[in-house]
Amino acid sequence: MRLRNKPWAEDYLRKHNTVVDLDGTHAGKMSEWFEKDQPIYIEVGSGMGQFITELAAQHPEVNFVSLERDKNVMIRVLDKVLEKDLQNIKLICNDAMELTDYFKDGEVDRVYLNFSDPWPKKRHAKRRLTYHSFLALYKAILKDEGEIHFKTDNRGLFAYSLESMSQFGMYFTKINLNLHDEDDEDNIETEYELKFADKGSRIYRMEAKFH
Amino acid sequence: MRLRNKPWAEDYLRKHNTVVDLDGTHAGKMSEWFEKDQPIYIEVGSGMGQFITELAAQHPEVNFVSLERDKNVMIRVLDKVLEKDLQNIKLICNDAMELTDYFKDGEVDRVYLNFSDPWPKKRHAKRRLTYHSFLALYKAILKDEGEIHFKTDNRGLFAYSLESMSQFGMYFTKINLNLHDEDDEDNIETEYELKFADKGSRIYRMEAKFH
Repeated sequence: MRLRNKPWAEDYLRKHNTVVDLDGTHAGKMSEWFEKDQPIYIEVGSGMGQFITELAAQHPEVNFVSLERDKNVMIRVLDKVLEKDLQNIKLICNDAMELTDYFKDGEVDRVYLNFSDPWPKKRHAKRRLTYHSFLALYKAILKDEGEIHFKTDNRGLFAYSLESMSQFGMYFTKINLNLHDEDDEDNIETEYELKFADKGSRIYRMEAKFH
Repeated sequence: MRLRNKPWAEDYLRKHNTVVDLDGTHAGKMSEWFEKDQPIYIEVGSGMGQFITELAAQHPEVNFVSLERDKNVMIRVLDKVLEKDLQNIKLICNDAMELTDYFKDGEVDRVYLNFSDPWPKKRHAKRRLTYHSFLALYKAILKDEGEIHFKTDNRGLFAYSLESMSQFGMYFTKINLNLHDEDDEDNIETEYELKFADKGSRIYRMEAKFH
């Protein structure tokens, strides 16, 4: 997601360095940054942050980390964290490729990927967040029983991800091929989802683990 | 697929015992039954036989086997085999559970499953042709690099099969979540598909292998 550049974004984020890590200050020490020692769920590419902040509000027994590389987008996540006065969420402003700098092996319990950029051109496949090089990063930081929860409205990206993840040695514990038609009460909608579900797009969802 | 009982069906099938095996006569000796020594593709649950007979006509370099347990349905497959004068196809009238009686380990190159009965009730899951006990049979008779090609218009069965197959240690080499929208020139339509595609149902398709 790209938003217009806001020159004041960096100052605003830096002012809230108890919540936001802009420079890798907490790399390798993420668990220690949280007040409570409890499971860690991360979202890679949080967009406007509706999903992860609502989840964090519902689950005070979990520590959440939002990874988003675009400062102009991350300020929207920070807005929501402050507004809801959430104590169990931290924000990392960096690229997904750097995940293993932040988390120790097996430190994370769950990875969320919501409406990731589909990169539809074949030559851009390696930028997709379910390309095997990213799966290797998730595998490293996830516990053995850790899960990836993936949601998208992009049919091509979903099919690609089923192929890529199964080829990497993952298996699926739950698959929905038309989420809003199957009445999943646990579903928390993202801004993106609210916008497109209205237009009748199908939402695809899966939960996956490593063999 | 159920059709009205035809008392003459068994006599008709028995008369063509060079094509049809009703009693397991060729169990354990399927390769030997064919004139030519070439790869074997089987279809489990052939219905009216449109798919497998068209495929057999297009690929004389492959030996085909149609497995269908209902005699009243199998006569339709036989009709098409005789009409097209196909030399590279044999018909087995038996249940999928008996597959390993017919084929030796690693004798088969490909298994087709087309529009299998979805058995939508959870307590009937073990009757689905992608339940793990059936996958174990396919694995036994398939070569190491053998493939399962699966096609259905049933969303629930497709999602279930992705879960079941990945949990069994399979991976997907090709997935289509809306076949007729993706213009696959190799697709051969079944009677069932022709009928339902008109009504705008989505067709789901996958190709899968064992790790």
